[in-house]
Amino acid sequence: MSETLAPSARTQVKRLPDRGRYDTAVVHRILDEALVCHVGFVVDGHPVVIPTIHARHGDRLYVHGSPASRTLRALSGGIEVCVTVTLVDGIVLARSAFHHSLNYRSVVVFGTAHEVSGRAEKLAAFRTLVDHVVPGRWDSVRPPSEKEIRATLVLELPLAEASAKVRTGPPLDEEADYALPIWAGELPLHMVPGPPIIDSRSAQGGAVPDHVSGWLREK
Amino acid sequence: MSETLAPSARTQVKRLPDRGRYDTAVVHRILDEALVCHVGFVVDGHPVVIPTIHARHGDRLYVHGSPASRTLRALSGGIEVCVTVTLVDGIVLARSAFHHSLNYRSVVVFGTAHEVSGRAEKLAAFRTLVDHVVPGRWDSVRPPSEKEIRATLVLELPLAEASAKVRTGPPLDEEADYALPIWAGELPLHMVPGPPIIDSRSAQGGAVPDHVSGWLREK
Repeated sequence: MSETLAPSARTQVKRLPDRGRYDTAVVHRILDEALVCHVGFVVDGHPVVIPTIHARHGDRLYVHGSPASRTLRALSGGIEVCVTVTLVDGIVLARSAFHHSLNYRSVVVFGTAHEVSGRAEKLAAFRTLVDHVVPGRWDSVRPPSEKEIRATLVLELPLAEASAKVRTGPPLDEEADYALPIWAGELPLHMVPGPPIIDSRSAQGGAVPDHVSGWLREK
Repeated sequence: MSETLAPSARTQVKRLPDRGRYDTAVVHRILDEALVCHVGFVVDGHPVVIPTIHARHGDRLYVHGSPASRTLRALSGGIEVCVTVTLVDGIVLARSAFHHSLNYRSVVVFGTAHEVSGRAEKLAAFRTLVDHVVPGRWDSVRPPSEKEIRATLVLELPLAEASAKVRTGPPLDEEADYALPIWAGELPLHMVPGPPIIDSRSAQGGAVPDHVSGWLREK
């Protein structure tokens, strides 16, 4: 039995509503797979969208805030954000130009983000962020110094007002178009790692650790 | 000799300014490679960020507006947007947690988007969008009907206030950390196509066209 998030006026998917998914597990899975998110906020009435790293911890979302730290720190009372994550799974090639599409999974989260300020909670958030990008990495690296902890801004927001949109499968063409002699189908896309590149300044080669050699994103 | 865009107060990259690139060719290349963009706009004072398809035509950016057509159409006088595009090129594994990063290329465009309304211009925009996703596709598919032309919302905005941010290369660790016996380097990431999947409703198999079998995004 899966929990669902009640759609709010904003997260209710208006166009093509059958693509809307409010299932918590679906929302979580998309957030967990995506490497980056796009954070939108309003500055003096103007929209700003910045890519950054995020990580989910239970029903909270951490967002690495440093790319916009000046703006974000100024709003110490919390900042209203829209965090959007998109995974492109393939290209949908229809017989008509109109029905071309992408297969994708996206999540939109609305909420008020606050700075994570307690030292212990901040450290836990860093661990969550690093292990989100490379599971298992945190335990093998030098932990942050006090200065580094202070220098890093992490925001958190609840995953209360969130929804997913998912498109899968073949093109959906107009009935009359199926007879056209036009190649139609899907071109799946995958995010795959190339061979790891050791830093040329590494004193010793050393074996590539499993969390690097075995890194695979798709679940 | 490459043209550059003068940084405005908003596109001036404040954090890590050496990562900021204002070179027009760099901005264009990133926009051309990315399959999706994230469009941010303000609704009743609240930020909204929606993923959609974009395509560049010279120094204009087309944005497929249908995912937010209700909101966007209401603003017939033009809508202020921030369009952000991000390509993730790899994971940067440092010796310290703090210096972990991603290699990426991103572009942020600020501007006022207007609906593309003339029939001929709209058709040209559709072609640009379809061929942006799959170069060469447009000429092999059924062109849009008048009804389909009316049903599709395309926005355009000038690429006047745009900037790129690029990170490449190995981790940059604290000098003292280079001696640590921690594997450090890069894990390059690539967006690669899998084998094309023909639509099961295709009357005849037919050879996969070159624009599908030869599709490759990285330039």
